[in-house]
Amino acid sequence: MRLLITGGAGFIGARLVRSLLAQGQLAGKPIGEIVIADQFAPPADLAQHPKVKALTGPLLAQCEGFSKTSFDGVFHLASAVSGECEADFDLGLRSNLDSTRALLDALRHGGHGPRVVFSSSIAVYGPDPAHPLPAVVDDDTLPCPQTSYGTHKLMCELMVADYTRKGYIDGRSARLMTVSVRPGKPNGAASSFFSGIIREPLAGVEAVCPVDAQVGHPVSSPGKTIEGLIRVFEAEREAYQGRSAMNLAGINITVAEMLAALEEVAGPKVRARVRFERDENIARIVDNWPKAAHSPRAARLGLKSDASYADIIRQYIADCRASGLADTALKGLS
Amino acid sequence: MRLLITGGAGFIGARLVRSLLAQGQLAGKPIGEIVIADQFAPPADLAQHPKVKALTGPLLAQCEGFSKTSFDGVFHLASAVSGECEADFDLGLRSNLDSTRALLDALRHGGHGPRVVFSSSIAVYGPDPAHPLPAVVDDDTLPCPQTSYGTHKLMCELMVADYTRKGYIDGRSARLMTVSVRPGKPNGAASSFFSGIIREPLAGVEAVCPVDAQVGHPVSSPGKTIEGLIRVFEAEREAYQGRSAMNLAGINITVAEMLAALEEVAGPKVRARVRFERDENIARIVDNWPKAAHSPRAARLGLKSDASYADIIRQYIADCRASGLADTALKGLS
Repeated sequence: MRLLITGGAGFIGARLVRSLLAQGQLAGKPIGEIVIADQFAPPADLAQHPKVKALTGPLLAQCEGFSKTSFDGVFHLASAVSGECEADFDLGLRSNLDSTRALLDALRHGGHGPRVVFSSSIAVYGPDPAHPLPAVVDDDTLPCPQTSYGTHKLMCELMVADYTRKGYIDGRSARLMTVSVRPGKPNGAASSFFSGIIREPLAGVEAVCPVDAQVGHPVSSPGKTIEGLIRVFEAEREAYQGRSAMNLAGINITVAEMLAALEEVAGPKVRARVRFERDENIARIVDNWPKAAHSPRAARLGLKSDASYADIIRQYIADCRASGLADTALKGLS
Repeated sequence: MRLLITGGAGFIGARLVRSLLAQGQLAGKPIGEIVIADQFAPPADLAQHPKVKALTGPLLAQCEGFSKTSFDGVFHLASAVSGECEADFDLGLRSNLDSTRALLDALRHGGHGPRVVFSSSIAVYGPDPAHPLPAVVDDDTLPCPQTSYGTHKLMCELMVADYTRKGYIDGRSARLMTVSVRPGKPNGAASSFFSGIIREPLAGVEAVCPVDAQVGHPVSSPGKTIEGLIRVFEAEREAYQGRSAMNLAGINITVAEMLAALEEVAGPKVRARVRFERDENIARIVDNWPKAAHSPRAARLGLKSDASYADIIRQYIADCRASGLADTALKGLS
């Protein structure tokens, strides 16, 4: 089968491509080609892989060409992040709404009705005076997004459902929990610190936490996130249940608990590299996000959350070692 | 103040313009000009009114010009109806989604932050295997639209909320119940028969009901619908509560009860002009709509539903007489 992964050069995208190449098949069918569409070139291991074809450039400009290619499956991960969308309203509309619309239209005009997984976000949820957020959001919670990013994600979920209803695609939307621990550098997402406060201390670098230690949030490891995307792709329609978006699994944790887990795994010296300095912009965005989530639909698909946050940190450390990055990424451990 | 009414030449739009002209003010400010933007020319009484300016053509093409006009208030009613959107997917996207986006961007670039009422619809609700419809939908019910029309209305509600959050407009979305009795001819809406089964028999014409007599649905008279739109416009943000869409008031009624009311008001001979002939296309769409609604937010704004459906029919008869249409529209009464 031929797959398209938008945002396939990003952290989650590249990791998904590696998982797919490693398993060699998807939904029981051998994978012949993976097309990565991303504004950046993919990492070298993927760029050089014989089964990978990389298309580099803005997604919006690439979409017309997609209608001429027969894709069997699509993972649509490309997205501007929350902070970028708040800073540049037009960029958000273009990158998240217009690009998704163009992608869906290209797949529709392609006429092959490919299976499509759209990566949505827990950021669709937010409190509104008429609809306060419950203590724990679940698949039934009414989403009232409080950022442009969350707004566009929810609008795209609705398009995916309607293009699916019409038979143009076989789409399903999976709402990702905040992914932690992301490697690399901080990005423009307001949630970036949920990785930074673990990653930087492990690298021996001081980290600033912009919100209070009591802030709670549902998070998921990269591995569990990718497992969720693949499971949602492979699910039969009946098992997925209808066409509305579903939440992936996550663990509900506070910043204080994350730091306690860091100390448990890496010791008090590493933990001490995190200091608190409130950033009102970020704190305001995060304050409007769910404090915890429960994901009964994901559970029915057999998706489990990570066992513990300490486990997530240990996975991150193992990943750094496996990819030869220990010298810098884990410098703070020695 | 200068007002813009998109779809202002349509039935609800023209009636809204007449109400506004009659009351002479809105939210306590005198109305200086009403701009009607519609693909059709407005009725003669409005076209000739000194305070009315009519712009005739596709909304999408008109929007750029709107950024150069300073509007104090906007009622955005223009829309392709449900049946049209099901028949022509691109027309639905263009008329309902693209036009609303272009309108909101024009108002945003105009920089005056006008108050905007977007007329959404009860058609945003629908059953999904993961989210069956409750017996009675209310403001908290999760909308899972099952038509392109409902999908686009919900997407536009989300845009209105986000443009409002950013301060580009002062927007609010009101979900209209199905309006009954609409005068004139049947239109492309799947809900058209909810008026036809009353209007045609009163005009002495046979009517076909395409769904079973047991089908229930929330409906509202034209008068109560317009009262709702004006009230939502005039509400302070705190009274409107947040930025998410609210349901207008309606009465919950079955087709059988509508016909009983018709017999009560107009006699058995008129009632006998309705026969049942199931139309699978329409029945399938209607089957996915709410059977009943409850509107606590509208009630908190002081909006009440019509007293009874017999009352709605009596209003329709009085309206026909007042506008000199009794000879044809009420031909079946004599």
